[in-house]
Amino acid sequence: MMEFIVNNDFFKKAILEMSKVVSPKAPLPILTGIKIVAMKDCVTLIGSNSDIVIEKVLRNTISRVKVVDVYKTGSTVVSAKLLHDIVKKFPRNIRLTANDDHLVTMESDEIITTLNGFNPDEYPPLPKVAHDHYVSVPSKDLLDIAKQTVFAVSKNEAKPILTGVHLAFQKNYLSCVATDSHRLSFRKLKITSNLQRSCIVPSKAFRELITIIGSDSTTPIDIVITDHNVVFKSLFTTLYSRLIEGNYPSVSGLLQQEHKTIMTLNTTKLLNGVDRACIFASERRNHTIHFEVKGNSNFIISSNSTEVGKIEETQKLNSISGETELNISLDGSFLIDTLKVIKEEEVRLSFSGSMRPVLIEPVGNDLHTYLISPVRSY
Amino acid sequence: MMEFIVNNDFFKKAILEMSKVVSPKAPLPILTGIKIVAMKDCVTLIGSNSDIVIEKVLRNTISRVKVVDVYKTGSTVVSAKLLHDIVKKFPRNIRLTANDDHLVTMESDEIITTLNGFNPDEYPPLPKVAHDHYVSVPSKDLLDIAKQTVFAVSKNEAKPILTGVHLAFQKNYLSCVATDSHRLSFRKLKITSNLQRSCIVPSKAFRELITIIGSDSTTPIDIVITDHNVVFKSLFTTLYSRLIEGNYPSVSGLLQQEHKTIMTLNTTKLLNGVDRACIFASERRNHTIHFEVKGNSNFIISSNSTEVGKIEETQKLNSISGETELNISLDGSFLIDTLKVIKEEEVRLSFSGSMRPVLIEPVGNDLHTYLISPVRSY
Repeated sequence: MMEFIVNNDFFKKAILEMSKVVSPKAPLPILTGIKIVAMKDCVTLIGSNSDIVIEKVLRNTISRVKVVDVYKTGSTVVSAKLLHDIVKKFPRNIRLTANDDHLVTMESDEIITTLNGFNPDEYPPLPKVAHDHYVSVPSKDLLDIAKQTVFAVSKNEAKPILTGVHLAFQKNYLSCVATDSHRLSFRKLKITSNLQRSCIVPSKAFRELITIIGSDSTTPIDIVITDHNVVFKSLFTTLYSRLIEGNYPSVSGLLQQEHKTIMTLNTTKLLNGVDRACIFASERRNHTIHFEVKGNSNFIISSNSTEVGKIEETQKLNSISGETELNISLDGSFLIDTLKVIKEEEVRLSFSGSMRPVLIEPVGNDLHTYLISPVRSY
Repeated sequence: MMEFIVNNDFFKKAILEMSKVVSPKAPLPILTGIKIVAMKDCVTLIGSNSDIVIEKVLRNTISRVKVVDVYKTGSTVVSAKLLHDIVKKFPRNIRLTANDDHLVTMESDEIITTLNGFNPDEYPPLPKVAHDHYVSVPSKDLLDIAKQTVFAVSKNEAKPILTGVHLAFQKNYLSCVATDSHRLSFRKLKITSNLQRSCIVPSKAFRELITIIGSDSTTPIDIVITDHNVVFKSLFTTLYSRLIEGNYPSVSGLLQQEHKTIMTLNTTKLLNGVDRACIFASERRNHTIHFEVKGNSNFIISSNSTEVGKIEETQKLNSISGETELNISLDGSFLIDTLKVIKEEEVRLSFSGSMRPVLIEPVGNDLHTYLISPVRSY
């Protein structure tokens, strides 16, 4: 038995977020559902897919608004898709009850709906995680880090390690690395940590972190790492993810190079220019874009496709030092991914030769580093 | 040879609309393109798919804004997709030139792109339509009519006649009918017409009319009908469509029935109720929703699926006359389509028995009539 009344606005938002996580194609039918647990002072929602588990808590009162009123504690599991379809179409607060036969009834105004639920005892238990060793990170910083690294992970499942983001907690730093071996994103964050360890977090978990925790948290996010799991815990939402097992490659050597040419450009203008050049850069040829320096202050971005056409544009360099002869081809989509997550107005590109990786850094921020390997264009 | 400068905002909007019409999969490569014709005082864009042709005119000046400046008259044909990709990413006004080898160059600021165009002489000519016999219809009214009928056409190509909307111009009325033989929409508009004839317009043309002409016109739309074509002409846009050949069935008999029960309800509430009931109404079973009158003033909307669950809600009738015993099953998606296009606050449902079509009309407007046949629910 279970019975509670819930504020429809809060319930709708929570169910929407949960139903995006829960896969309707889960092999076990019960995993297509959301587990609803009514306790004395809150209602908890649990949903999962093959990579992560999300737990969301609706407390009795949130920001002085009455959110839930629990009459009988208990639990049930209901199809996430149905729950979402119903809740978004219900006009007002909902009375939700479940009986011993797992029949779930939802009432709102003159509307009554009855659903066949699942036996909540058959829902797999949450991973057990002791919350005694954790690092607290401001949520805004954690979300920035996630966005600024996760795009660079490998999409190739053949090397599972590279499909995740490597997190390393040191005494004064959290460092994050993602690479697909053609490009790399390295991001550091100053923190105070009593945890000294590292792990590889699946990119899906990092992406969910951005969408789910990002929408609810202004408070810090606690990170707990166990042997097989990582947990991100914000005020109302907890995300559990399995870890990817294995040893992440060391990348420090890649970041130390001698540079022949160093130049700075406006970030947005460069992004727009590369984006335009990509019109003619096909995926089949690695979105190849050509870059050239001409006459000491002109940066020429071009691409061409013999069948379709070509494009060329000239941008003014803000500064250039070193050799002013430069001719290199890069994957335009990699450069776009990188420039999109750089918030700083100016960006520095450091070149070591036409077959060596290009270093990309925001000017005035030494905590980001991006590397992109050139493509052979002949 | 051709050369003009065009205001990017106007060009972008026009190319976006055209590129939605032009099919990138057209069997003849030139038909994947947009024909651009520069004349002394305007630039014309022409695009087509298998059903319709759209012609858009950019005059030198629109609402006192300089739009085009033609230096050399001429024409070219360029891939609609490429043109769209480029124009949306170009920051400022564009200089467009075409040479005798059909090479098209577009310049904006420090950006130059060159495209392989098609020979404009190979683009099929527009249908010849004399503009001497036409009917002028206020655009708002024409768009309303289109929206209020086109949803009811048949999706089954086996009966081509029913995939179109039947337009009949009489002396004082334009009447429009669409039906898929399970439901019907009948809409009249008071006009003064010196044209007395009828035609069947493909639903795709009517849908394009809504999106394309709808966005640009506050002035009347002129309608010209020839033996094989219909033309809708607004200030800047002309839509040519082939007609569907054949005789449209007469529907007047269907609209005259004796009604056993007539009731009125709030349109939006009914729409929301049916929408909720559809959660449990599967496509496989024709979205069957049950309706029942109870105790003289209660209207009960319900649906159920043995595997999933059921829903039931009670709405108050505004009025009821005739027999107060009623039990009928309808396709909920048909009812939703109909209620969505009714703007009036109150709707009248007239029933003639559980196996006879239901008549649906907005209260206070005798120019709309909708019919929906019941589904057998046993």
